[in-house]
Amino acid sequence: MSGGAITNKRVNLARRPHGLPRREDWAFVAEPVRPPGPGEVVVAVTHISCDPAMRGWMDARRSYAVPVELGAVMRATAAGEVIESRDEELPVGARVTGMLGVQTHATVAGSALHRIDPALAPVPRYLGALGSSGLTAYFGIHDIGRPRHGETVVVSGAAGAVGSVAAQIAKLHGCRTIGIAGGAEKCGWLTDELGLDAAIDYKSEDLAARLAALTPDRVDVYFDNVGGEILDAVLPRLALRARVVFCGAISQYNATSSWAGPRNYRELLYNRASVTGMIVGDLVDRWPEGRKKLAEWVGEGAIKAREQVVAGEIEDFPATMLRLFRGENVGKLVLALER
Amino acid sequence: MSGGAITNKRVNLARRPHGLPRREDWAFVAEPVRPPGPGEVVVAVTHISCDPAMRGWMDARRSYAVPVELGAVMRATAAGEVIESRDEELPVGARVTGMLGVQTHATVAGSALHRIDPALAPVPRYLGALGSSGLTAYFGIHDIGRPRHGETVVVSGAAGAVGSVAAQIAKLHGCRTIGIAGGAEKCGWLTDELGLDAAIDYKSEDLAARLAALTPDRVDVYFDNVGGEILDAVLPRLALRARVVFCGAISQYNATSSWAGPRNYRELLYNRASVTGMIVGDLVDRWPEGRKKLAEWVGEGAIKAREQVVAGEIEDFPATMLRLFRGENVGKLVLALER
Repeated sequence: MSGGAITNKRVNLARRPHGLPRREDWAFVAEPVRPPGPGEVVVAVTHISCDPAMRGWMDARRSYAVPVELGAVMRATAAGEVIESRDEELPVGARVTGMLGVQTHATVAGSALHRIDPALAPVPRYLGALGSSGLTAYFGIHDIGRPRHGETVVVSGAAGAVGSVAAQIAKLHGCRTIGIAGGAEKCGWLTDELGLDAAIDYKSEDLAARLAALTPDRVDVYFDNVGGEILDAVLPRLALRARVVFCGAISQYNATSSWAGPRNYRELLYNRASVTGMIVGDLVDRWPEGRKKLAEWVGEGAIKAREQVVAGEIEDFPATMLRLFRGENVGKLVLALER
Repeated sequence: MSGGAITNKRVNLARRPHGLPRREDWAFVAEPVRPPGPGEVVVAVTHISCDPAMRGWMDARRSYAVPVELGAVMRATAAGEVIESRDEELPVGARVTGMLGVQTHATVAGSALHRIDPALAPVPRYLGALGSSGLTAYFGIHDIGRPRHGETVVVSGAAGAVGSVAAQIAKLHGCRTIGIAGGAEKCGWLTDELGLDAAIDYKSEDLAARLAALTPDRVDVYFDNVGGEILDAVLPRLALRARVVFCGAISQYNATSSWAGPRNYRELLYNRASVTGMIVGDLVDRWPEGRKKLAEWVGEGAIKAREQVVAGEIEDFPATMLRLFRGENVGKLVLALER
């Protein structure tokens, strides 16, 4: 099979979004698949990871990653199957994950891919609890949160891909763990299925009052995926020398002016607390360590992984990804390409 | 001499300030000096330290310290002379510093005081570079900033009691050190006398543009005494894994609504940076280490200490202390009581 004989349908960034992205911010392009060079493989993409971080990649301004260029394929972690190979280590049929982009076929260096085994876990899980979401949770808790047995850990976006794993790792450390999520269904999942000590529905409950009631010993670790008002509600509950893991701020990603800064940031001073930003891509050398631990936990059921798999075409990417900003996903949101 | 025979003039907190404190927020009271109990001494106060932190102590809300009670003496670090003693270690005539409060005479436990030697340094210096201001700078730089040789350090409030010492310690670590201060006189002092690599007058210069020009390798350590707009201007200049020492936020202390949160706090994520609050009172066990080092540096001229000593009566405390919020002081602001 020659790569040139098949068509790659790709989703390019067409313009910089203003606020919430719209479908018109992307362009749908068909082109021949580029044949692999030495060491390269062609991957038929099967699953595309939908991540809040994608929103930041679409902006022109400097962030932790270079912006996606206008006209370039939209950046995404994805999973797929090798259909053509010039890399001895990755034969045709190998299943892989990597930064494949939002497209049906990717021609990439085999060395940039991670091989996965669909017999051990469903493919979408390798994008979630066993992939960058799980690794983000793992290193955020271990390196920055550093919870000790008996401490109190609060996680925002707790029903999301990262938050749900972070909260469960905190439980494994023997911490009193409280999740913040939007809606009764998510909160029920957090307490009934994942075994968190409590969950707060920020949409229907008085967050500050519930937090105060649920954290009599205050909050030693706050794993923040959300920012904004929820961050401001947690800051006054921080314990002495608390650690805030600044993993994300999904409430602010679509702000059309500047972000809302945390009004209560003085609590960091009052409590001699710290906020530290973390980006999982920095720790690629330690991903094997994290993957091993996550695979053990997921394998033995100590961490329950959940994916929300949306079956569709590549053209369904915008609508699927935008679910993130309506808080519609529970667990890892993945677009599975019908083939 | 019996303590009861002399009069203590004390400055009590009379009401909680709204915004900038006013003279009426304090009450001036005269009462007999309380005779010392076992282990106590009576100190005739000679010098009162004026610190931005005093503003926070006046509020009812929880901060790192319990609020000053209404009707209680205004909290202050001060220096004085023992005039009556029931503590064998502190004879009459001993010079001391401690939390003596804004009053002419304090009856306190001798064990809570630190003995000083006016032959080695002027008494006001023991409240500044050799006292809690210097210790704050020392531990903030050492424990949180952790600058390495060749890194870039930015200090706000750089002409203040803490900032001027922090900046000089950074220079001693071989760091490119830039001070931010208000006015040409302060900036001239920072570069010409203290030897900083540059100073930015935030009142007359374009802070963001000057910062960008002066920090080609970005900012590894930001020692923040000011918060607000200056913090927001520095955050986008942070280097990868930068450390922000959150020492204070004098620009916000008199805010009548909530503080202005740092709009650019996303830069912490983008740069995997951290903000950590620090309170020197936590480290009292290590003050001897810090005092020793500061005394060496000041003694050999490696750190230049400066005090702004205002001579006056105890009634001059409000007007003197409020100079802090007009940025009128260079170095340590001290009220020296005329006797």
